Amino acid sequence: MRTASLLITAPDRPGLVAAVAGFLVERDANIVHADQHIDRTDGLFVQRVEFEIEGLDPVHLRADFGEVADRLDMQWSLHEGDEQPRVAILTSRQPHCLVDLLGRWANHELPGRPVVVVSNHPDHRAIVDHHRIPYRHLPVDPLSKAAQEIALLEELERHDVELVILARYMQVLSAKVVDRYPGRIINIHHSFLPAFAGGRPYHQAHARGVKVIGATAHYVTAELDEGPIIDQEVARVSHRDDVAALVAKGRDLERVVLARAVRLHLQRRVLVVGTKTVVFD
Amino acid sequence: MRTASLLITAPDRPGLVAAVAGFLVERDANIVHADQHIDRTDGLFVQRVEFEIEGLDPVHLRADFGEVADRLDMQWSLHEGDEQPRVAILTSRQPHCLVDLLGRWANHELPGRPVVVVSNHPDHRAIVDHHRIPYRHLPVDPLSKAAQEIALLEELERHDVELVILARYMQVLSAKVVDRYPGRIINIHHSFLPAFAGGRPYHQAHARGVKVIGATAHYVTAELDEGPIIDQEVARVSHRDDVAALVAKGRDLERVVLARAVRLHLQRRVLVVGTKTVVFD
Amino acid sequence: MRTASLLITAPDRPGLVAAVAGFLVERDANIVHADQHIDRTDGLFVQRVEFEIEGLDPVHLRADFGEVADRLDMQWSLHEGDEQPRVAILTSRQPHCLVDLLGRWANHELPGRPVVVVSNHPDHRAIVDHHRIPYRHLPVDPLSKAAQEIALLEELERHDVELVILARYMQVLSAKVVDRYPGRIINIHHSFLPAFAGGRPYHQAHARGVKVIGATAHYVTAELDEGPIIDQEVARVSHRDDVAALVAKGRDLERVVLARAVRLHLQRRVLVVGTKTVVFD
Amino acid sequence: MRTASLLITAPDRPGLVAAVAGFLVERDANIVHADQHIDRTDGLFVQRVEFEIEGLDPVHLRADFGEVADRLDMQWSLHEGDEQPRVAILTSRQPHCLVDLLGRWANHELPGRPVVVVSNHPDHRAIVDHHRIPYRHLPVDPLSKAAQEIALLEELERHDVELVILARYMQVLSAKVVDRYPGRIINIHHSFLPAFAGGRPYHQAHARGVKVIGATAHYVTAELDEGPIIDQEVARVSHRDDVAALVAKGRDLERVVLARAVRLHLQRRVLVVGTKTVVFD
Repeated sequence: MRTASLLITAPDRPGLVAAVAGFLVERDANIVHADQHIDRTDGLFVQRVEFEIEGLDPVHLRADFGEVADRLDMQWSLHEGDEQPRVAILTSRQPHCLVDLLGRWANHELPGRPVVVVSNHPDHRAIVDHHRIPYRHLPVDPLSKAAQEIALLEELERHDVELVILARYMQVLSAKVVDRYPGRIINIHHSFLPAFAGGRPYHQAHARGVKVIGATAHYVTAELDEGPIIDQEVARVSHRDDVAALVAKGRDLERVVLARAVRLHLQRRVLVVGTKTVVFD
Repeated sequence: MRTASLLITAPDRPGLVAAVAGFLVERDANIVHADQHIDRTDGLFVQRVEFEIEGLDPVHLRADFGEVADRLDMQWSLHEGDEQPRVAILTSRQPHCLVDLLGRWANHELPGRPVVVVSNHPDHRAIVDHHRIPYRHLPVDPLSKAAQEIALLEELERHDVELVILARYMQVLSAKVVDRYPGRIINIHHSFLPAFAGGRPYHQAHARGVKVIGATAHYVTAELDEGPIIDQEVARVSHRDDVAALVAKGRDLERVVLARAVRLHLQRRVLVVGTKTVVFD
Repeated sequence: MRTASLLITAPDRPGLVAAVAGFLVERDANIVHADQHIDRTDGLFVQRVEFEIEGLDPVHLRADFGEVADRLDMQWSLHEGDEQPRVAILTSRQPHCLVDLLGRWANHELPGRPVVVVSNHPDHRAIVDHHRIPYRHLPVDPLSKAAQEIALLEELERHDVELVILARYMQVLSAKVVDRYPGRIINIHHSFLPAFAGGRPYHQAHARGVKVIGATAHYVTAELDEGPIIDQEVARVSHRDDVAALVAKGRDLERVVLARAVRLHLQRRVLVVGTKTVVFD
Repeated sequence: MRTASLLITAPDRPGLVAAVAGFLVERDANIVHADQHIDRTDGLFVQRVEFEIEGLDPVHLRADFGEVADRLDMQWSLHEGDEQPRVAILTSRQPHCLVDLLGRWANHELPGRPVVVVSNHPDHRAIVDHHRIPYRHLPVDPLSKAAQEIALLEELERHDVELVILARYMQVLSAKVVDRYPGRIINIHHSFLPAFAGGRPYHQAHARGVKVIGATAHYVTAELDEGPIIDQEVARVSHRDDVAALVAKGRDLERVVLARAVRLHLQRRVLVVGTKTVVFD
């Protein structure tokens, strides 16, 4: 059964659910799953509807729904369930998130497909080659940063990338890159944000003596570690855990949370609303 | 803002969401929240819709919706948000769930209201008196069990009880009682069902050497510990935990899980579908 | 079987474990449980030893161990297992932590005993009376704060209090109070510290759009929300949770985490080491 | 700093801790970490002591400690911290645990080293080749099972394997294999044991309508899914999760729990005591 998803944001008003449901029922597009949320603070209506698209023409569907949407001030996107978004992975020295993601794609655990891996280190070429994905080594230092980002952007464009995953990529991206992929760059931060933003969060966590550590997957915005949070996960720690132990426990959180966020994004289950996300899981 | 909730179960077919949404939009009943689920195995559609009822006459609404529902083979119930379901609590020696629930009602953390506490032990009269709720001591032994259940049923009927909570009530209820309150008796079992059903689950868990224990809130059916599960929660344990430590850790699970299940039920967020529940949280 | 606990901190050097174990074996004091930790950063040895004290004279034991300890630069304390530390509870408007703690003491879930409840509000007198504990209403406003703290200190001294629990007490204690009870005031902060320190943490958490909330029990020091953390717990939340829902979910965390920290402290399982704790659980 | 670990089991009696600590202090072997546990039910003393072995001769140490141990009825083993136990991985069709473990070894997250991968399917040769580990395809069917196990045992012996990991190996090992590696075969069962032992646990979990699923790493014994549990982990699920979703969520549990159990075993932190484990983490 082929399905498609509608993601909708609109100023709240009566009749939005009925309008969308009515539109689909007129076309015999059976609703498989629908979830909506009203943010009362902002007076915002947010909806995800998944429906059977068999026998329907997506081009006509888009045109027709566009008229409904205009009338109701909706922002919307329609995604066919069998599309395969093209993904880039950026990484630095630590391979655990990269390797985990590649293993998941190889095992058909994630939608979409990785089309390029970019790293400021040469270390991961062999495993990326094994997965038959192009590996581009773009070293960076303070002097070459601007040039490196231009090369990076060229790489992303050449591969027609829709989503960029920062899999422990330890370089801060400039606005030049961030602005080109709004709501389309996912970072894994190795702390429970907003605690321990910035560098060396496990050292910070150890110094503070916390009893729980975390990891946070979020969209990248111009402000470091301030973007909309997609998912978070935590693990208990104790005084027995030194920094190395926190790093080790943290790796398991990072792997799982990043993969979850990537899956949710690629399944079109995440909507950014201001500085936050709505996640239809 | 006054709201009401519709809980609907129906054989799946196209147009159900649109039919309900259309019904409400015609009456200017703005949908605040809607969640639906399709169980593909059983071909079943399940929905909870919460909407603003201000200015609407519940009697007419019920009559009108009944016609829609008949046409679409729906089973349904309509609950006004400010109704206060009457609740009975049954308990034995251990007071922690009883005391926790009473504290939550006193602090306005739960909807509905407790109208009677029944126990086969006299121990908890003082705290129940403090909350100004009738306390009925109905002792039980193998010979008197049938008579005790008759007295129990009278008590529940006299107080016009809608929901019965077994807050560590250690007597097995006979079919006579269970059948009178289908889907309306919630039990807390002190294990992670289906593991360790039956008696002394913490002893069983200790003997098996598990590393995680749990508690399960479920509806009571004729078969012991087999009813539809509403909620479960778990806690890590280790070899350092003897049975007494498991019991102590378990108490925190029991308190929290039972209270959560009671809240979900009283907020009309739980639907029983066969041997399982759909929980709209 | 009567036991006692030794809590020891010392500069690390070889032979500390053997010295303590040897001391006890010479006196036929069977070790029931022993746990030690070496903080390599600070070169610090920390130990908790629980042993059978039956037949031993605590006075002699203390004198004898004092000599061992002096020789090895140990800081130490000896606690007999059947001591009942005297506890004060301070609270403001919200009763859930107070009521939860009182229920636990009534149900013999916690060691020690509450000897006085102090509040800047009169609201909780009835439930405290029910538990037959003195209730002292000490209202406070900006002008009367100094005088109120003097009255508070008198109250704590009159009741010979060893531990002070801030059970959602919403007043900041001045250094005058904090310094009188170093490492003996436990606060529950309603966030996952260091995230959302200060006021209205659930509002902060909602504004940031986090996917997990938390609660933190910590010792109170001169710097607000900066004291050594004893325990933390977290719960998943989503975009569906408004501030009121976060507050409701948070209450369950606060109850459980505060009770856990109080139990650990009263069982002499917590040692403060600089700005952190070692928790022997 | 080089360390070694002593793992000790003995009938409980006074003086065991002092005897071990005294033995080490006489040899200037500074104790880095020590943890002991007394199982009162069985009157059993269990201890793990980690100490600095620099400058000590392991051969003499073993001989000398053997005398102490004999005197006190201890069963014991001594493990030098830099030993690299040889590990075999057995797997069937599903690669996620295999790939995860190989990635961890490549990233130096696990001690020991994988020396052979055996599978009843040919599918995983490429990724195992990439890691430069021998891959042995040993197909099995009901008729060939006995012969396949003989080949399997030869393979394990040829590679001088100390630990066997069943990374979603879907064949039941006969007593012939199990008895050759007592306490040295770790299996990952894809349920929260003892719930849903046997086949297709996610189907069982879905049919029962549980709200939490789990995974269990345990030592393999003659009785299927009854061996001592090393670690367990759980994840929340809901009515929205069909069997495929449970399988997907379960994979993350399986990966993490199996890796944790393998690490604990290889770091000599697990002791089997009867049907249970003591895990010194």
